[in-house]
Amino acid sequence: MTAGTLPTRFDVSLPDWLVAELPSLPRVLPSPEDRVRLVNSLADRNWREGNGGPFAAVVVDAASGDIVSVGVNVVLSSGLSSQHAEVTALGLAQTALGSWDLSDHRDLELVVNWRPCAMCFGAVIWSGVRSVLLSGTGPECEALTGFDEGPLDEGWVAQLAERGIRVREGVLREEAVAVFERFGASDAVVYNAGR
Amino acid sequence: MTAGTLPTRFDVSLPDWLVAELPSLPRVLPSPEDRVRLVNSLADRNWREGNGGPFAAVVVDAASGDIVSVGVNVVLSSGLSSQHAEVTALGLAQTALGSWDLSDHRDLELVVNWRPCAMCFGAVIWSGVRSVLLSGTGPECEALTGFDEGPLDEGWVAQLAERGIRVREGVLREEAVAVFERFGASDAVVYNAGR
Repeated sequence: MTAGTLPTRFDVSLPDWLVAELPSLPRVLPSPEDRVRLVNSLADRNWREGNGGPFAAVVVDAASGDIVSVGVNVVLSSGLSSQHAEVTALGLAQTALGSWDLSDHRDLELVVNWRPCAMCFGAVIWSGVRSVLLSGTGPECEALTGFDEGPLDEGWVAQLAERGIRVREGVLREEAVAVFERFGASDAVVYNAGR
Repeated sequence: MTAGTLPTRFDVSLPDWLVAELPSLPRVLPSPEDRVRLVNSLADRNWREGNGGPFAAVVVDAASGDIVSVGVNVVLSSGLSSQHAEVTALGLAQTALGSWDLSDHRDLELVVNWRPCAMCFGAVIWSGVRSVLLSGTGPECEALTGFDEGPLDEGWVAQLAERGIRVREGVLREEAVAVFERFGASDAVVYNAGR
């Protein structure tokens, strides 16, 4: 144990490759397919770059598709186990808009390549997004990647609906599964803590 | 929508009053009562200072009680809905120890004034802490404060045990309930997003 001072802050940053990529991304993603295609593509690049798991998320204006923030899983590059793609993208959106409640601003949507883990399920509720768009849900993520996604009640979609959050899923699902297949065939780190 | 650049980073910081307080805190909390007394006290001060809800958490060496990090809920002061006390304390501990997996280092315990919300339940699993010490669990938190804590499976203690994480609860419980009573009697902000 250090006898030094206790930590007082930490910083969450997008990886350099994504910061470099941002200016060339489209700023508007009109269709569900446009939105999901981007997160599937970023998820696939993210694990290859070594920043974290094969997961990406973007926050968009649900109606227009204007991008508010782009995030990826940065557990490995940040050293922070909570920095899944969803938590990172939501935190960046709240930083950009200056509020912990994204519903203050407009009808915002969180787009992710797979259903949330146990933690991110709660993070979605607390964020103020009004909808979630998922490329896929189901057992493929854990089966193909080896990640523990944690307990998630089978009524999770209804639990979000009770809080005014809509869920759409099954857009370009095969693309999302293919990312997990490539990850699973690699020797990339599966960061299940304490194992 | 801004036409400017997309956000690339955000910063999580302890509030100034707590940074100022850190040098005068004990660096070792040997007994469960010592540990819980500190989080109950910080939780009570946190909402009065306006940083966020009445919640605090510390990460300690489970055997010795050496403090690794101290966190409070900074949702309001950081503008980040994910920065509950647990996520803040765990992130600070991971920053101090240089690893996303706290189990790399030793048997670490997360001490909190109440049972985790839906999000923090998952955050505990991903962090690598080996035990959780809670002043209390039960309906009092939501009933007295008005916070939505989200769905948590009634088997949550067993779900943590399956992953090697022990839970102890019921230490100075009346003290934790009294904090919620004082919060509930105030006009402090209850930050349920989207309401």
